[in-house]
Amino acid sequence: MSVTFPAGFKAAGVAAGLKPSGAPDLALLVGGPDTTVAGLFTTNRVVAAPVTLSRRRLGTGSGRAVLVNAGQANAATGARGERDAERSTGAVARALAIEPDAVLACSTGVIGEPVHLDELLGAVPGLVADLSTAGGSAFAEAILTTDTVVKEASAEVEGVRVGGCAKGVGMISPRLATMLAFLTTDARVGAADLRRLADAHVRPAFESLTVDASTSTNDTVLLFASGAADAPAVRPDGDRWEGLEAAIEGVAHELAAKLIADAEGGTRVLVVDVEGAATAAQARAAAKAVADAPLVKAAAFGGDPNPGRILQAVGACGIDLDPAVLDVTIGGVPVVTAGAIPASYFDPGSVLAARAREAMAAREVAIAVVVGAGSGRSRVLGCDLSHGYVRINGEYTT
Amino acid sequence: MSVTFPAGFKAAGVAAGLKPSGAPDLALLVGGPDTTVAGLFTTNRVVAAPVTLSRRRLGTGSGRAVLVNAGQANAATGARGERDAERSTGAVARALAIEPDAVLACSTGVIGEPVHLDELLGAVPGLVADLSTAGGSAFAEAILTTDTVVKEASAEVEGVRVGGCAKGVGMISPRLATMLAFLTTDARVGAADLRRLADAHVRPAFESLTVDASTSTNDTVLLFASGAADAPAVRPDGDRWEGLEAAIEGVAHELAAKLIADAEGGTRVLVVDVEGAATAAQARAAAKAVADAPLVKAAAFGGDPNPGRILQAVGACGIDLDPAVLDVTIGGVPVVTAGAIPASYFDPGSVLAARAREAMAAREVAIAVVVGAGSGRSRVLGCDLSHGYVRINGEYTT
Repeated sequence: MSVTFPAGFKAAGVAAGLKPSGAPDLALLVGGPDTTVAGLFTTNRVVAAPVTLSRRRLGTGSGRAVLVNAGQANAATGARGERDAERSTGAVARALAIEPDAVLACSTGVIGEPVHLDELLGAVPGLVADLSTAGGSAFAEAILTTDTVVKEASAEVEGVRVGGCAKGVGMISPRLATMLAFLTTDARVGAADLRRLADAHVRPAFESLTVDASTSTNDTVLLFASGAADAPAVRPDGDRWEGLEAAIEGVAHELAAKLIADAEGGTRVLVVDVEGAATAAQARAAAKAVADAPLVKAAAFGGDPNPGRILQAVGACGIDLDPAVLDVTIGGVPVVTAGAIPASYFDPGSVLAARAREAMAAREVAIAVVVGAGSGRSRVLGCDLSHGYVRINGEYTT
Repeated sequence: MSVTFPAGFKAAGVAAGLKPSGAPDLALLVGGPDTTVAGLFTTNRVVAAPVTLSRRRLGTGSGRAVLVNAGQANAATGARGERDAERSTGAVARALAIEPDAVLACSTGVIGEPVHLDELLGAVPGLVADLSTAGGSAFAEAILTTDTVVKEASAEVEGVRVGGCAKGVGMISPRLATMLAFLTTDARVGAADLRRLADAHVRPAFESLTVDASTSTNDTVLLFASGAADAPAVRPDGDRWEGLEAAIEGVAHELAAKLIADAEGGTRVLVVDVEGAATAAQARAAAKAVADAPLVKAAAFGGDPNPGRILQAVGACGIDLDPAVLDVTIGGVPVVTAGAIPASYFDPGSVLAARAREAMAAREVAIAVVVGAGSGRSRVLGCDLSHGYVRINGEYTT
């Protein structure tokens, strides 16, 4: 059900012929007339045409529907790409008899390749006809590219529902990946408050992910609120705000966890916690440095606990720190204490090293780093660097 | 010959038993009493004990010899590591009957593992006895770890010689790599002028390299000048300065090129040129982002020209740019013009795509990016991301 779990939303997904495989590749989500929306977009300077269009329409306060196509990213497509985004959302708006500005757009697929516009426009009538309150899963399936599983999540709190779905694995056969996520709630929430929820409770969940340190040109997260729940409006000063915060944050984190679990070529999830930094931003920089370090990622693939590589990544991440106070644990096993790796770690029969190896060979590898005595802390989710990643992104040549 | 090609230097390399393989692993380079030296060190906050020691001794104006051990990096070894560095250089100083402060140190190998001090100290007398003006190649061999070839370079200009050697491939079985380079000249150059040469003509050559975006805890480059050439002193205001600059820069670039050609698992060298940036630093940031992007590196491994991945990396690198003016060529083939990939690029029989594929499948892949109309330009040398890299750093588990 995902995005149609909350009341007030209809969705559909169809095969329009945009993907060579013939799989579903065109998706539509529509909220009722009172729907509010908040959006988060890529920070890449090279942005796809649909991102430019959606950002502009959100800026004018519009948006209660989103059209998503998979197969072509509509990025680096120049003026033609902008025209294609206008025309495809315009066709949807006409079919729904709503304002063109109310239709947002997302694209994912090959960068540079023009959208297959004829096929897309030809599929719009059928897509609109298929809209239903049970269409969430069809929507969630049609936005996938090289994802191996559909990623959905939902929560319910005090008469209000929250749903969501996402896609993204790092790359697309064999081009750039896009992380897309859609969250819905039937809570009645004003646009400014929804924006606050998106910034405080949705953004951190997705910004904690790193598959390959590569920010897409198309990343988009949209949070819609239909207000269709049989419940009073939710406001920051009301007693139901915290419940909604928790529900939205829970759905966002569940989607983020499902994204990293399906990371391209990934065989292990890295959960990197940094604490003791001067600020949360510094903690995040250190955690991201560890999760992005190719040496750490390759070591994780081999199940090789390699404290020196973690130290290397933290030391070079650019934050101010005293190497003499660094502590590192892998799966709770202390592998660096006060900046030094215990000399016994390198003894052939070291129990410490054996325990660290076991922790590094788990499906989920917990790496914790204490960088000082500050209050800044952060968690980043990453994955290992495997032969699968190289094969997917190197061997599937055009 | 490498570092002993210039007059005034002796060198040696022996097997002390620090490497499990039994290969040469202890090296010594010694200049005459008038030798000046300039050093460049890692910027990692976690620094090895020998780096701390060398930096301190250089700060007091000392240094005409360097002891290098391979096998243990002597990083993250705490107070014991500092003591080991003092003791090993002290033993060399006594054997040479020179001041302890005149002996610098470098280590490369496993992070955290204590130096095998007994073996090292036991080998010092033989090492010193082996010193000779023909010992450059023995020195160059003994500093290697997982390097597959010795890396030497030399130049001669106006009666003055320059020599050098280096090591580093990205990783060490299976721990963190270290990039070490040693350059010598028999020109008579004051310490401050030598520092100027190192900063202006040696640093850029090595900072232009990136194997895996990972700054080692042990990186060290030392430039020694013996003054033993039968030639007058070289000064910045003299007419022989430019020749020496060019010779030193040439040797540095030759060593850098040899390092990247031996990068761990590398099957192709990426030569990334960025121009049109506001500053050289911005151009470097963009070039490094392209050379470090796992998506670009994996595409290079597959010989897959993927303009979208290059655009993605440039757009996310953090510099200010107008995406609409970006031009990208691969091997001279224009794959992005004014921010857009030509639509015809995706036609099945595209000649443009075929030419780009050919350029991307070469041993040396030239990627050029124009990011604007500024005067900032930079070149970065990188390599591809191969199964070999994953195997070396993931499968060789402890």
